Amino acid sequence: MKAYALLGGPQKEWPHNLQFLLSSAQKDGDLLVGVDRGTLLLEEMGLRPDLGIGDFDSLKKSELDQIERQVPDLRYSNPVKDFTDSELMLQAVFDDYRVDRLTLLGASGGRLDHFLVNLLMVLRPSLRPFAERIRILDRQNLLRFYLPGRHLVKQEKGYPYFGVGALTAVNGLTIAGARYCLNSYHAAYPRVFSSNEFLPGKGQFSLSFQTGLVVVVFSKDLDRFDHL
Amino acid sequence: MKAYALLGGPQKEWPHNLQFLLSSAQKDGDLLVGVDRGTLLLEEMGLRPDLGIGDFDSLKKSELDQIERQVPDLRYSNPVKDFTDSELMLQAVFDDYRVDRLTLLGASGGRLDHFLVNLLMVLRPSLRPFAERIRILDRQNLLRFYLPGRHLVKQEKGYPYFGVGALTAVNGLTIAGARYCLNSYHAAYPRVFSSNEFLPGKGQFSLSFQTGLVVVVFSKDLDRFDHL
Repeated sequence: MKAYALLGGPQKEWPHNLQFLLSSAQKDGDLLVGVDRGTLLLEEMGLRPDLGIGDFDSLKKSELDQIERQVPDLRYSNPVKDFTDSELMLQAVFDDYRVDRLTLLGASGGRLDHFLVNLLMVLRPSLRPFAERIRILDRQNLLRFYLPGRHLVKQEKGYPYFGVGALTAVNGLTIAGARYCLNSYHAAYPRVFSSNEFLPGKGQFSLSFQTGLVVVVFSKDLDRFDHL
Repeated sequence: MKAYALLGGPQKEWPHNLQFLLSSAQKDGDLLVGVDRGTLLLEEMGLRPDLGIGDFDSLKKSELDQIERQVPDLRYSNPVKDFTDSELMLQAVFDDYRVDRLTLLGASGGRLDHFLVNLLMVLRPSLRPFAERIRILDRQNLLRFYLPGRHLVKQEKGYPYFGVGALTAVNGLTIAGARYCLNSYHAAYPRVFSSNEFLPGKGQFSLSFQTGLVVVVFSKDLDRFDHL
């Protein structure tokens, strides 16, 4: 099963076709998840979340009543806690719903500490095993996470550029078959190699490393649709 | 001396009063720096950059002629290289111009691999000594970097929230005198503690750690001016 989770990031960073994307997904039987205010935002798009997680502190009583009536699996988190709402959501989605692929929406833009939490939460030992099933999607970027090993990274349609980022210390980082290559690089600290490109006619590159966790940022220039 | 550097990030993430901020700064004798297209963007705001660094590949001949006439210290970088334009700029600003404080603008938003490069470049050993002199400013956030030791972090005017992020493994991370405290936390991997707040009537908190590098993200909700 696939899942889509809407977090609280600003709407201007959402993919421009989000409502269509999510209503199509729900028709196909995918799981829709709201994190805190994201639960209400799904409702406001005319979509019924299957799961909602948050402390819902910032919601009005009437808004909370609405989601309590509508959302079949609503879970309250404790605002003073060791896990953020997004982290609790990941745990629930992978442990309880056993989803194969989760796309995070509303995870970027706005307050940058929020974005960094969303980017880095896969590093937590309890969430790291799920890293390769998680992607972050916004108006201009698609982020995917990789565990140690050898990967053929396929180009995502519409994204001509990519960057490869070591989010931890990384050993043996190798990028082959791309415009800029890298041979067995040892990163002692997080480091991003940006502005790489797929080779013409070759829709993939090879990525390998022995330890650590790597993010690949696929990105594009905005076109007129993305500005809508 | 203070310096302000404009990078190539999207204009919608710039602080709303950027032109005023920069023209006031230049009148006060501060250094204005353009990185690649940022050099032209400064010109287009009616400001003369003191220093410009980039490969300028994406500029038209007429645009390049203009900045060659106007910018007293213009430096060409090699597009295939180990240091990004932003990193070369940091080295120039601190080594050659000996600035005490550098504010990076146009460093966030848009392509997220670019933002991550700008966020993480202070981790490079040659740049790390300058970390505490660097800040990143955008429409909604102000980021400051801290080296090991004990710091009194003062509230920045207009920013009610903050998050504390270990950008590397960090030992003994302690936050005291804030809404959410932390006592001698060991981060084995990058981790961000978001959505903290200053205590009422207390415009500072205490931050300490023994190893690694920490970012503090000061943030605010957008008001109507910020949307202009």
